[in-house]
Amino acid sequence: MEGSRSGTAGKPIKCKAAICRKAGEPLSIEEIGVDPPKAWEVRIKILCTSLCHTDITSWKQNVEPFAIFPRIFGHEAIGVVESVGENVDEVKEGDTVLPVFHPNCGDCKSSKGNGCSVYMRRPGLTHYMPRDWTSRFRGLDGQVIYHYLRVSSFSEYTVVDVANIVKINGLYPVDRVCLLSCGVCTGVGAAWKVAGVEEGSTVAIFGLGSVGLAVAEGARLRGASKIIGVDLNPEKFEIGKKFGITDFINPSDCGDKLVSEVIKEMTNGGADYCFECIGVASVMADAFASSREGCGETVILGVETRGTPLSLNPFELLGGKTVTGCLFGGLKPKIDIPVLARKYLEKELNLDDFITHHLSFQEINKAFDLLLEGKSLRCIMWMDK
Amino acid sequence: MEGSRSGTAGKPIKCKAAICRKAGEPLSIEEIGVDPPKAWEVRIKILCTSLCHTDITSWKQNVEPFAIFPRIFGHEAIGVVESVGENVDEVKEGDTVLPVFHPNCGDCKSSKGNGCSVYMRRPGLTHYMPRDWTSRFRGLDGQVIYHYLRVSSFSEYTVVDVANIVKINGLYPVDRVCLLSCGVCTGVGAAWKVAGVEEGSTVAIFGLGSVGLAVAEGARLRGASKIIGVDLNPEKFEIGKKFGITDFINPSDCGDKLVSEVIKEMTNGGADYCFECIGVASVMADAFASSREGCGETVILGVETRGTPLSLNPFELLGGKTVTGCLFGGLKPKIDIPVLARKYLEKELNLDDFITHHLSFQEINKAFDLLLEGKSLRCIMWMDK
Repeated sequence: MEGSRSGTAGKPIKCKAAICRKAGEPLSIEEIGVDPPKAWEVRIKILCTSLCHTDITSWKQNVEPFAIFPRIFGHEAIGVVESVGENVDEVKEGDTVLPVFHPNCGDCKSSKGNGCSVYMRRPGLTHYMPRDWTSRFRGLDGQVIYHYLRVSSFSEYTVVDVANIVKINGLYPVDRVCLLSCGVCTGVGAAWKVAGVEEGSTVAIFGLGSVGLAVAEGARLRGASKIIGVDLNPEKFEIGKKFGITDFINPSDCGDKLVSEVIKEMTNGGADYCFECIGVASVMADAFASSREGCGETVILGVETRGTPLSLNPFELLGGKTVTGCLFGGLKPKIDIPVLARKYLEKELNLDDFITHHLSFQEINKAFDLLLEGKSLRCIMWMDK
Repeated sequence: MEGSRSGTAGKPIKCKAAICRKAGEPLSIEEIGVDPPKAWEVRIKILCTSLCHTDITSWKQNVEPFAIFPRIFGHEAIGVVESVGENVDEVKEGDTVLPVFHPNCGDCKSSKGNGCSVYMRRPGLTHYMPRDWTSRFRGLDGQVIYHYLRVSSFSEYTVVDVANIVKINGLYPVDRVCLLSCGVCTGVGAAWKVAGVEEGSTVAIFGLGSVGLAVAEGARLRGASKIIGVDLNPEKFEIGKKFGITDFINPSDCGDKLVSEVIKEMTNGGADYCFECIGVASVMADAFASSREGCGETVILGVETRGTPLSLNPFELLGGKTVTGCLFGGLKPKIDIPVLARKYLEKELNLDDFITHHLSFQEINKAFDLLLEGKSLRCIMWMDK
């Protein structure tokens, strides 16, 4: 760590972070201390971060043990390595990296899915560093400030476990590649790796936020012939066309018909692949009902925070339907993010149209408002502006 | 059809069949008339038939539209083609064939699953021939007698659609190969094709009837390292060992622990593959709970006849668990049955130990008693004895 160009390696760094002190209240930009990285950890200077709906879900969360404050949210970002702890060989100072909430320790060799058995033991509780279960953030008064989803990117500096770091070519446009840190990968990966959408197949997507649109983008890349978007907001159809949506259903316009009936008519018996991108158990059941008898697959991407169970008819499962879900689109971050970044450079993958707003980090509460009002897809917040 | 050796082609045949006239009442062996096969149909002389638990489920069923009598049950059998209708080129008089409830018309090219979109439109209603929706059976008084599951093998002669026929080498031992007509394929196929059990993986099977034991046999063939059987009958463990069961759980012996907790302890976090072979929604939920976080797959094989919904925690799906189900083990009968028959001849697949009893067709009600009392796995009933 000697010879660090910044001269900060091994020492705490004072910097600005957006702190949440109480569920649902505006974040406050405060000066904090960020400890040096311990073994297997990396300290990162964030270049830009974007706001994902999961940040908002957690920010609203006022039930323990998930509601724990003061806390630094943010988990979709790109940055540069400031310094590394012991045992970190994978990246070095100056490398451009994506911090990713979903770990990829490299030990899991399973060909199925992207579960990381070592790191996923406490998936809901991510307020500490995963290995020693302590924090690297503190207020200037010494008070512990908690981490979030192993990233905490709403801070000029953060510390992340090396299992949650993906090295990326520093010449790529950082605001575009930043989106591969969470939402776009979740949607594209779900269509690509989890469902394995096939050429000529039919797809229905419930909820056209960034994740739902990224599913459409993934289905388009895989050659789906019909990509039906379902959303209550009619403006989403025009936006959706940019990502491959071919047909649009507004549930408000279905009259006496169920959405699933409309989809079955449009697809001659049900969509081959249905994706729930909202997080409402009844919509998950609608997605299942809309999937093709005998072989339809339903993929759950939305987070059902109310604890409502999903109720399914066992006969439909017996007939061959499948329900599954995934975190981070079933992708292994260290392997799959670089593949998607290249697809962006080769103009196969549309990232540009996800970015609807640019703000300075200081304006972070405005980014919350824009997303809450449904006015933004992805808002990039620049740390140095 | 001219030149038929039997001289019966093109004419109705009088023969004996076991008729069910009322739900749950003993079958009566009666003389009936079996019409000649129409286009795309095959008339078969049954050699032997066995009793599957689904016959019993349907025999008990007293709710319309599924309870429809008089009816000829039976759907696991082997026979010889007596004559064929127009457009049937696939088999000819004298061929040995398995009639199979699950159709395989040959038109479905999907690589996923075995759904037959043309024939599966009325899967629960199988009391008529699938193409012209009429019966080929009548009493000597002219009364219509209904079909069952497109097979109706509890009759010396039956008529089956060519989509439900699999040609088989006539030199194979008929009572063994008979088992590939339903139960064994359902279990072996679920492990092989639906779950894709991998070498070294862990498996939990809920319910050790013939289907559950066939799942074990399939998992053993695929190289699973641990195959846990769950059943209330302790005798099933000894029987199960013949089919690869390595560990046994009797839910009555688990004390305060849930079966899923015991399985998680035995498998370091959950079985990779769980199979429900009973047909009880709460057991399906237990199977799901016993599957590995992040990647566990649960396969539903049991028929939930009470209509109880399956209730799942969406968070566990989001984490990467999968639930699916299948008919006929996800196998395409015309392609996969010959493969399994060869595996039997090569002594890879254990069929012998499924056969616990041999009876004459006249003794069919005894076969029902044996299965209802849990004393038999498969009872072969010989038509000519």
